[in-house]
This record gives sequence, C-alpha cells and structure tokens, in this order.
Amino acid sequence: MRIARVIGSAVSTIKVDSLRGSKLLIVSNATVDDELYGEPYVAADAIGAGEGELVLVAEGSAGRHTDLTAGAPVDAVIFAILDSLEADGRTTFRKS
Amino acid sequence: MRIARVIGSAVSTIKVDSLRGSKLLIVSNATVDDELYGEPYVAADAIGAGEGELVLVAEGSAGRHTDLTAGAPVDAVIFAILDSLEADGRTTFRKS
Amino acid sequence: MRIARVIGSAVSTIKVDSLRGSKLLIVSNATVDDELYGEPYVAADAIGAGEGELVLVAEGSAGRHTDLTAGAPVDAVIFAILDSLEADGRTTFRKS
Amino acid sequence: MRIARVIGSAVSTIKVDSLRGSKLLIVSNATVDDELYGEPYVAADAIGAGEGELVLVAEGSAGRHTDLTAGAPVDAVIFAILDSLEADGRTTFRKS
Amino acid sequence: MRIARVIGSAVSTIKVDSLRGSKLLIVSNATVDDELYGEPYVAADAIGAGEGELVLVAEGSAGRHTDLTAGAPVDAVIFAILDSLEADGRTTFRKS
Repeated sequence: MRIARVIGSAVSTIKVDSLRGSKLLIVSNATVDDELYGEPYVAADAIGAGEGELVLVAEGSAGRHTDLTAGAPVDAVIFAILDSLEADGRTTFRKS
Repeated sequence: MRIARVIGSAVSTIKVDSLRGSKLLIVSNATVDDELYGEPYVAADAIGAGEGELVLVAEGSAGRHTDLTAGAPVDAVIFAILDSLEADGRTTFRKS
Repeated sequence: MRIARVIGSAVSTIKVDSLRGSKLLIVSNATVDDELYGEPYVAADAIGAGEGELVLVAEGSAGRHTDLTAGAPVDAVIFAILDSLEADGRTTFRKS
Repeated sequence: MRIARVIGSAVSTIKVDSLRGSKLLIVSNATVDDELYGEPYVAADAIGAGEGELVLVAEGSAGRHTDLTAGAPVDAVIFAILDSLEADGRTTFRKS
Repeated sequence: MRIARVIGSAVSTIKVDSLRGSKLLIVSNATVDDELYGEPYVAADAIGAGEGELVLVAEGSAGRHTDLTAGAPVDAVIFAILDSLEADGRTTFRKS
C-alpha cells in the first residue's frame, strides 16, 4: 500500500452508475518523511479523508475490497488515515 | 485511477468476440493541470467519451467492472468524464 | 491495453499443461506512430496474429479472459489485430 | 515476489474495519545483496516479521491470499522471513 | 509474460503454510538476446527449473494459476523453460 497525501478532488457528472455518490480524491504518493513524489492520481475514498491528510492507498483489485467500492471500476482506494509513521528508528510523521 | 485525455481511436476487425461493438479509444495520461505525459494506450469506453475530453481511466481488473466490459480481455476502461479538478487549493481544470 | 508489434516467438517443450498448444509470441510495445519502445515480452495469441502485425495486448488478469487462455498462467494476451489508428486528428497507422 | 527489508511501521486509528488489528509495516525493496532501493511502501504482516528483518513481499491480489488479509483492501503482504539468499553461485545474504 | 533467467534461490523457514514445500527461485528479467536487466525478484517454480535456465515468468494473479501455487500469496511463477527464442527474423537464443 502507498503512503499518499490528499491534494484535491475530481468532479464528474457523467460516470458509471456504480460510482454515483462516491467521493473521488486526488492523491500524490509521499515518502515516509511526507515529501510528495510522482504524478498525482485519483482514489476512491472509503473512510472520509480530508484534503491535506496523509493516508494509505491500496491499489489494483484491493481497491474494491471496501463496502463503498465493491463492484465498481475502482483501482485505488483510501482505506486509512495515518496517525504516525516510524522508520529507521525515528518518528518521521505525526498527524498534527 | 488515472486522469487521461482521449486523443484518438483504434480500429480492428479481427478481434475476440467479447469486444465486438466496443469502442476502443486511445488515451494519454494527464497531470492535474491537463498536461499529457507517458506513452498513449488504449482503453475501452464505458460512458460515451469523445475525442479531446478529459476522463478517468480505471486500470487492471477494475477495467472489467462495467456492463460493457465484463468478461472481456480489458485492462483499462474510461468510466467518467471530468467536469473539473481541484488541486492544491485551486481549480486546475474546468470542462469548457 | 497496449499497442504492440509482434516481433517473434518463444518455443518451450517443458511448460505447464494448461499452455500446451498455445502460441507464445514475442511482442514489443509501440507508439501510435508504430515506433517500438521498452523491452519485448511474451504474450499468448488468442486471434492468430502473425509476425510484423500491429496488435492490441491486454495485460494482467485480463489476459485470461479469452477462450484460449482461461485458467492458464497468462498475464498478457493478444486479443485484436489493428487495422488503423487515429490520433491527434490524423491517421497514424494503417495496415498495409 | 520482492525481497524487502522491514524499516518501520504505520499507525492508523481511522481505517476500514477489515484491517482492525492488522500490523502495517513499512518496507523497502532490497537487492539480493541486501541493499535498499526505491521508495518505501506499506505491507500487511502475515507472519510476525520484526523491524530490520529481510522478508518476501507478495504484491497485488496475492496480498490477500493469507488468513489475516483475506477480504481486506491489501495489495502487499509479508509472507516469509528470509534465512538466506543464494545468487550467482554465492551466498549473498544470511540471517544473523 | 517475462523472459527471465534463474540466478539463485531463497530459503525461508518462517513462512505462510500455503508455501511449505514450494521452491522459491531468484530470477532476473532478460532481453530476447539473453541479457539481464532490472532488479532480480523471486518467483515460485511450477516446472522444476534449474539455476542458469532461461524461463518464462507470469506475474500478478496469473502466478496462482498452476497446481502448485493456487491459493498461495504468489505474484510470480515460472511456468515454462525456454528451448529457443526467435526475434526480428533470427534465432536470438537456443538452449545448449
């Protein structure tokens, strides 16, 4: 799963029915030190994440293993909001 | 899911039966600012997208979770036409 | 799905039973202008493609959604032979 | 499957119910000579791995083929702790 | 599927039960001319491949479509030993 930051959202009125009512957020992958890298992409939100929060994203078919995304064309889902990260013996991130 | 722009289409008469009648569009991934990047690829169209439109593409097995692509050898599907994108506190794209 | 050119074939006598009789072709991804890029890989052939033809390849679990590849350890299948490609308002490829 | 080293852990109180009680570890891919490469990511722990250990990670839907991760939005799982690696005719890693 | 060379093996005593008795080999992707590229990874062996042999590897969920890997956290399986490769009109590899 990827560490990612929520940086925005996507709005669409013409979409498949299985995603009506779903919140589609724009996320960017992040390092353990909370530095963004790579091109942003879109993930379905399964836990009520807000802009600016550091989250975990599950990709591929894992994206459909939540109540909100089952059966929909989803290949990335936000399934956790991060409280803290520990790496190499130190706290690299703590939610403020 | 990837932000992508429809840049063309692919025509094929010899193909598996499960894709007869499917529209196969050529798309290029795009940044939140609607700049294209990477090599174009082909996605099945599940919502009637047109050339030039900014869309969302679901990859992998997610590509088969629409009525039009279920059971077919599809690894990428256009499932939404984008109205707008918000990122880093500003509107980075709005459909004209 | 990827635009790819068939550039050769792989021969193997020791392989899993589910792939006995399958044709395993070597393909290289191609741009919309039919220029090859990336390292060649092997795809199962579900439609009788020939060397030199431009084809479409479905990757991942999509590779097993044809009659010939169902249930086999296949992660890439040729499912269409391309007649033509249109991109950016022009015909970039036409089968000769 | 990837050779990886456990370098830390992720803490989250707001997450999907299917991952309550799961241990989410931060791992970095490693070469056969135990040198780290690429950006660290998060994997579910199915075998009780500890920080600093060299492990094997299965990605994609394989991540849900353990008792602890079945049905959860998991795309990477630690399924083995490595004792040793042999490559190019020599022992490149041995657990101390 | 990827052309790959078996370059070694991984030994693990602490692992999930579904992989007890499985042979986990270290492989490196190879070009059609049998030159190695990329970082080595681990694949389950479904056909009795030996070190030094050129093989085909199926990745992702395809890795579990053999008798030996069904139901296990496997995302890469060796399913064929290569006899020869033909590319661009010449024999680029022949098993000695």
